[in-house]
Amino acid sequence: MCGIFGVQGVPGAASIVHLGLYSLQHRGQESAGIVAIDDDGTARVARKMGLVSDGFDGATVGSLDGSLAIGHTRYSTAGSSTIDNAQPVLVRFRGGHIALAHNGNLTNATELRHELENEGSIFSSTMDSEVLVHRLAKSSAEAPATKLAEALQGVEGAYSLLVVIGNTLLATRDPRGWRPLVIGRTPDGAYVAASETCALDIVSASVVREVEPGEIVAFDGTGIRSLKPLDRKESRRCVFEYVYFSRPDSRVFGGSVDRARRALGRRLATECPAPSAELVFSVPDSSNSAALGFAEQSGLPLELALIRNHYVGRTFIQPTQAGRDAKVKVKYNAVREVLDGKSVVMVDDSIVRGTTTRGLVAMVRAAGAREVHMRVSSAPITGPCYYGIDTPNREELIAANMTTEQIAVHIGVDSLGYLSLDGMLESVPDGPRGFCHACFSGDYPTPPPTDPDKLRFGCGC
Amino acid sequence: MCGIFGVQGVPGAASIVHLGLYSLQHRGQESAGIVAIDDDGTARVARKMGLVSDGFDGATVGSLDGSLAIGHTRYSTAGSSTIDNAQPVLVRFRGGHIALAHNGNLTNATELRHELENEGSIFSSTMDSEVLVHRLAKSSAEAPATKLAEALQGVEGAYSLLVVIGNTLLATRDPRGWRPLVIGRTPDGAYVAASETCALDIVSASVVREVEPGEIVAFDGTGIRSLKPLDRKESRRCVFEYVYFSRPDSRVFGGSVDRARRALGRRLATECPAPSAELVFSVPDSSNSAALGFAEQSGLPLELALIRNHYVGRTFIQPTQAGRDAKVKVKYNAVREVLDGKSVVMVDDSIVRGTTTRGLVAMVRAAGAREVHMRVSSAPITGPCYYGIDTPNREELIAANMTTEQIAVHIGVDSLGYLSLDGMLESVPDGPRGFCHACFSGDYPTPPPTDPDKLRFGCGC
Amino acid sequence: MCGIFGVQGVPGAASIVHLGLYSLQHRGQESAGIVAIDDDGTARVARKMGLVSDGFDGATVGSLDGSLAIGHTRYSTAGSSTIDNAQPVLVRFRGGHIALAHNGNLTNATELRHELENEGSIFSSTMDSEVLVHRLAKSSAEAPATKLAEALQGVEGAYSLLVVIGNTLLATRDPRGWRPLVIGRTPDGAYVAASETCALDIVSASVVREVEPGEIVAFDGTGIRSLKPLDRKESRRCVFEYVYFSRPDSRVFGGSVDRARRALGRRLATECPAPSAELVFSVPDSSNSAALGFAEQSGLPLELALIRNHYVGRTFIQPTQAGRDAKVKVKYNAVREVLDGKSVVMVDDSIVRGTTTRGLVAMVRAAGAREVHMRVSSAPITGPCYYGIDTPNREELIAANMTTEQIAVHIGVDSLGYLSLDGMLESVPDGPRGFCHACFSGDYPTPPPTDPDKLRFGCGC
Amino acid sequence: MCGIFGVQGVPGAASIVHLGLYSLQHRGQESAGIVAIDDDGTARVARKMGLVSDGFDGATVGSLDGSLAIGHTRYSTAGSSTIDNAQPVLVRFRGGHIALAHNGNLTNATELRHELENEGSIFSSTMDSEVLVHRLAKSSAEAPATKLAEALQGVEGAYSLLVVIGNTLLATRDPRGWRPLVIGRTPDGAYVAASETCALDIVSASVVREVEPGEIVAFDGTGIRSLKPLDRKESRRCVFEYVYFSRPDSRVFGGSVDRARRALGRRLATECPAPSAELVFSVPDSSNSAALGFAEQSGLPLELALIRNHYVGRTFIQPTQAGRDAKVKVKYNAVREVLDGKSVVMVDDSIVRGTTTRGLVAMVRAAGAREVHMRVSSAPITGPCYYGIDTPNREELIAANMTTEQIAVHIGVDSLGYLSLDGMLESVPDGPRGFCHACFSGDYPTPPPTDPDKLRFGCGC
Repeated sequence: MCGIFGVQGVPGAASIVHLGLYSLQHRGQESAGIVAIDDDGTARVARKMGLVSDGFDGATVGSLDGSLAIGHTRYSTAGSSTIDNAQPVLVRFRGGHIALAHNGNLTNATELRHELENEGSIFSSTMDSEVLVHRLAKSSAEAPATKLAEALQGVEGAYSLLVVIGNTLLATRDPRGWRPLVIGRTPDGAYVAASETCALDIVSASVVREVEPGEIVAFDGTGIRSLKPLDRKESRRCVFEYVYFSRPDSRVFGGSVDRARRALGRRLATECPAPSAELVFSVPDSSNSAALGFAEQSGLPLELALIRNHYVGRTFIQPTQAGRDAKVKVKYNAVREVLDGKSVVMVDDSIVRGTTTRGLVAMVRAAGAREVHMRVSSAPITGPCYYGIDTPNREELIAANMTTEQIAVHIGVDSLGYLSLDGMLESVPDGPRGFCHACFSGDYPTPPPTDPDKLRFGCGC
Repeated sequence: MCGIFGVQGVPGAASIVHLGLYSLQHRGQESAGIVAIDDDGTARVARKMGLVSDGFDGATVGSLDGSLAIGHTRYSTAGSSTIDNAQPVLVRFRGGHIALAHNGNLTNATELRHELENEGSIFSSTMDSEVLVHRLAKSSAEAPATKLAEALQGVEGAYSLLVVIGNTLLATRDPRGWRPLVIGRTPDGAYVAASETCALDIVSASVVREVEPGEIVAFDGTGIRSLKPLDRKESRRCVFEYVYFSRPDSRVFGGSVDRARRALGRRLATECPAPSAELVFSVPDSSNSAALGFAEQSGLPLELALIRNHYVGRTFIQPTQAGRDAKVKVKYNAVREVLDGKSVVMVDDSIVRGTTTRGLVAMVRAAGAREVHMRVSSAPITGPCYYGIDTPNREELIAANMTTEQIAVHIGVDSLGYLSLDGMLESVPDGPRGFCHACFSGDYPTPPPTDPDKLRFGCGC
Repeated sequence: MCGIFGVQGVPGAASIVHLGLYSLQHRGQESAGIVAIDDDGTARVARKMGLVSDGFDGATVGSLDGSLAIGHTRYSTAGSSTIDNAQPVLVRFRGGHIALAHNGNLTNATELRHELENEGSIFSSTMDSEVLVHRLAKSSAEAPATKLAEALQGVEGAYSLLVVIGNTLLATRDPRGWRPLVIGRTPDGAYVAASETCALDIVSASVVREVEPGEIVAFDGTGIRSLKPLDRKESRRCVFEYVYFSRPDSRVFGGSVDRARRALGRRLATECPAPSAELVFSVPDSSNSAALGFAEQSGLPLELALIRNHYVGRTFIQPTQAGRDAKVKVKYNAVREVLDGKSVVMVDDSIVRGTTTRGLVAMVRAAGAREVHMRVSSAPITGPCYYGIDTPNREELIAANMTTEQIAVHIGVDSLGYLSLDGMLESVPDGPRGFCHACFSGDYPTPPPTDPDKLRFGCGC
Repeated sequence: MCGIFGVQGVPGAASIVHLGLYSLQHRGQESAGIVAIDDDGTARVARKMGLVSDGFDGATVGSLDGSLAIGHTRYSTAGSSTIDNAQPVLVRFRGGHIALAHNGNLTNATELRHELENEGSIFSSTMDSEVLVHRLAKSSAEAPATKLAEALQGVEGAYSLLVVIGNTLLATRDPRGWRPLVIGRTPDGAYVAASETCALDIVSASVVREVEPGEIVAFDGTGIRSLKPLDRKESRRCVFEYVYFSRPDSRVFGGSVDRARRALGRRLATECPAPSAELVFSVPDSSNSAALGFAEQSGLPLELALIRNHYVGRTFIQPTQAGRDAKVKVKYNAVREVLDGKSVVMVDDSIVRGTTTRGLVAMVRAAGAREVHMRVSSAPITGPCYYGIDTPNREELIAANMTTEQIAVHIGVDSLGYLSLDGMLESVPDGPRGFCHACFSGDYPTPPPTDPDKLRFGCGC
């Protein structure tokens, strides 16, 4: 889970990237970085742990001169949380510099790395992205886009990439198009590429079009050029971007996230109604749109029954005195006036381990709810993601280990309804075909990585 | 604007306070502090700038031994943003130690300070709260509660206070009861006092009752004792706590904030309908409840048209390239799919300077809204608050300088409707009487401070 | 142990103070602070833990406007190492502001504090200096100098003080003159006051004269004015300033520290010769001058047998693997080429606990020294100092608990010779009368404090 | 200019390295780092900017498990002062990990880098050391020592290296032996390798022997094994290690630094006497030994005329008010009592730009010196060093641009005498042959690097 953002064609590009990264902060809060190329071709980098707002002051961003810049926000599991793994990567090679920002996961990274190691290559990080940089440096192609095309031959898995070679910005998506990447243009004519359109909005850029799966787009000051060097494959856009990951004010894969979630909520109300319920509420904020859709379809009134505390940092450590559910309590609180004596529908977008859900249900009951009907606007998650979403191992996934009935008992609800796989895929824009639903269905479009655990701790995103 | 929290009667009290402060973070993000008294009567203090989650690690809180502790979160204008003004205050005096946490503003602090200075007292901070500490130390009374009673004679203005003298925790509210303060009890029998009930919820405490205006409540391990030493005055609870300041999951002044805001929203729809509108949305998050009330009453569908980015820190500095509205854009984004081509009602709880509102309206229009009807769930703010809310000077208050029509033009809306003063007061729990509405009506319950500007930059809250 | 520095009469005074504090860093490395008064009478303060070079950047110092400023470097035992105890103290009182920087210890601070507490005063720190500020604020005198005169009546013990009241800088020494304080003048005519002349040198100031014991000197832009309001007492300059504490390039009490130490070394060679020795060396750097004196007098060649590592910070924590003497080894190393096979004289200025000395002797023997003759350029320390030097309790002072012979065995030397009390006092400039030698002789000029331990952890220096 | 230290064969090796780095701090204060290999073969690294004492806490060092570790202290010019250039380097390759710590400079790094780049290698830093890591990874040899031997073929310039491959520690010096490297053994039998013997002393290790020029020594738990795979070349030990760079308590190249400096001082007194002078003093601390030698030979008394302030950090920024020589004044002060009215000899080990010397002479004159005779215990520096000492460009070297007479006038002395090249080389242990004196004589043992400036800002040391 990462966000990427690039700008080509306007002085102070790093400052535009800085602003764009604010809008991609939800895609990764562990580290952030910016690389800028000045007019003399000098590349400068700033990378920091933590949030964009904590990490960069005006002086730092101001020192990153030039009209070409890319940036990255990174999420990662604790194990590999280190500045060495922060992106963008910046290296020197025979052709000058290469900078790279990656969203996704390569499924044959281990094999590619072994190949490179056998040729004597060295690796400074545990990121799969580093193999891409080596392959770029080794390519004998002249033009940056061709170099990237050559480097990507044989690379499997998910990648939306921003690459800078010399003065050229390259944007590409893997042939299955797992992760989004969109091109925009600012009022002063600079080109922008970003994971989501919300990052175009913040810099007042208008949407030009998506980078297509398998396409390499080059921006070098003379306009957009497109290359499609990779074998076409069946589209596998990540349905979870619509369900949970992207921001509701974004368009991804050409569709509106808000509209997608509204449709998921409406479908959920159709598939799993809750006839005895008196009201519906969301687990804020990611489920707000789905809950609204459920309310619309069901005719039940929408209520604000859970309040989220946004001031909780990543570092919260549960005090021992605070009881089992302190972590949930620090993030959420229930509104007794809304819940007391009521039969309620609680809408969430997904259940992963079930721990938070269980805490929330207890909180909702403690606030007086008479009946709790849980409705989930996606299908049960039964497998890990190898393509860039940080889901845990199968052992920790509650739906991989319990039936829906067992889960209902475990989390303490009166009824539990998941959206069906078909319902989910039929609700999202341009569905039901062309989506990756491996974590729901087990239908993995690639062979699983040979060492999934290493990958999980060593991935670029 | 501050939050206060105290615990008496359980080992590791500081850890309970720490947790409680998370829930009062919305009342102040500038600094946070905890004072704890251990069983040998030793007082320890930790105060930090910034958020609770940034400021305190487990080791710091763990080092604050004892079964009695109080804490404070502080908001302040930039001018007096310094660790010297962080609370709780902790001093030594002839009777041992005094610790004090204050929410509110004293309106005769300058006079009281001059009195003390004339007797030779020295002041280390610019907080009005410091005069209370001096008066406590000078009191010749024996019992802590009597000492506090004596110290409060002649003190004017707003104060909800937690005071520790020796092993006694004291909780008090000024005779007009401007700021809330509620007593709770944890499952293990410890007493808790907090600005809002949401902070009782997080520590699993149940509500016992409010501290009454003019009451001093003492907790010293032998139960609750109450003292009412101050002349009774007419109640002047702050209506803005219901309108904006408190959390919707809290009860303050005995009423539910969520219910209050819902009623304000319904009344707003009655007083200022928007017949041509097709949908209603809120400026998240503080206006969510009011927008829901408006939707209910008006029959218009509620939509999620503005998305708020919660990752923006306090330190955001607007990049020059980013245009006039970058600050608004970093915090909010509009959802085109919701707004495009629509006539919309935008509900906010208040308009202060109008700058943010103007930016939001521009953003909503840029996302395609055909007509924008702004509805405000409180009356126009025409004067500063001298009782603990950080409103700016009259010169900066837009409604003190423009008519509603002029404001509508300035912020760029098709129509603008404020809730009436009566409508506002009749909508809140236990209204319309007994509330302070000075900033709306100019009806100040006390003489204004002789040096309001100094007070504003030198206040305890 | 503290250093104080003040400037009156030149714009950018804080920057001059900043420079001066670098030269007083040896008097205190725990915290440093500067208070400046600008031309509008506004006082600003910056205080930091740690070294001057770590604590203050150009922007911080630059923000301390004005032509009047005082500064302080503070040493302290770990127990009271906190920013609350950093100086200068700055408070507001009826007459505006008072800023104060103190070097020394008040021996009746506890009594004075009780008096003040009984009148209702509050204390924010554990420093004895805080009683002075209260007494200043309570004085009804008009003129700053008279106010200080009044405040000092009845204050016992050691104090060299810099005080700012309004736009007046005051410099004073207690009537016994325990600690040094000297007046200088910069080339542009500003007045400077500092603990030692080395701090005048760094700002290119020439020496005007010492502040006399019991004198108050006022600088207010109209020249120097002098007041001698306190009863004269017999002079008790601290002989340890010459022996160890001041810098050798300073003059204190009107005498040269370098000359004093040279004379101490020569006298030591006369009193305690080492006939069998082949060379002499110092424990660097504080004993360099004394060792040179010893070499001169004895005719033995001076050698550099111990090398000191100046890069060791205050935070060194002894690794467990490193053996008993790691702390000594990190700071010092012996030069085998100098020591191997030789009979040597090791000169140090004093022995406190004996731990370091023991480690050094072991190191010198390990480097091949055949005989080690330890010579100490002061008398045995048999009692604590109540006047501003941080010597430990009697229990930890080796010479209070062992005879010289026992110490020699304990530290492992072939012979041990201390300078006699008379020899020491006769060697320093303007001796032998008028010095405090309480820690050597037990002849305390004042009654010991009623609670010496509290004082030790609660002192201003 | 760097220091390197390695340990093999004792649990907690990182803690031994940590201690050793304290003793090598004078060789580099910009950054410090430690790599440790635990018993499972996992490599861990900690690298920090700044001093060893600031950079590493007990927890950090404690987390670096294992009985094999290497460390590095680095000096660098401001241009390349970044954590990316801190050492040891740690990378993964087909054979596991490679860690490397380098003291010296490769003169054909640019050519070697181009070769590697042409094969597609990427570079993450600007250090010449990175080419060594690439060459190690590319070597097809099996055994670590053979791998290193292969990697070093064709590498020109100065390198003392510690390399870890798998569980083997390798220590090597280039065939000309520019930089020192010595092997020691701790009381518990672990092997240690360090730049200087002072770092053996601190860990109680005894000297085993030097690593010989062109030798690779392997430590793998089965004792020491030696390999001499490189063509023998004429010895070119850096004479400046004796003159200035090493610590006086160290032995380097088998000789005592203290003895070398004493001999340099004696020879200086013979070559350049100062018949009219009354005393001699050193510029502390690096010239102390030479001044003592001068005093011995000349019969003039040694005095302590300059006092050095060791509390000045690297960050001192000259206040504008402080005059031209503030930087010198913050570091040094003169003792008037020693200098006043005297004709003096000031001994320093070298003059680079002349700026500091000029300031010192002015200070000495201001303290009353009647005549100042400057004596320098090395020959004039007329060229840059390409082998690991950070001398500036020829344009900035005063002796490359002025005659001795001109320099005397420029720095303001009555006479100036440098030691002759022959005198210098005949004074150091095992001289006069086999030393590099290129910066004094222009006799560079290798072709100068093709891009000396890049090297200077991009070097490993």
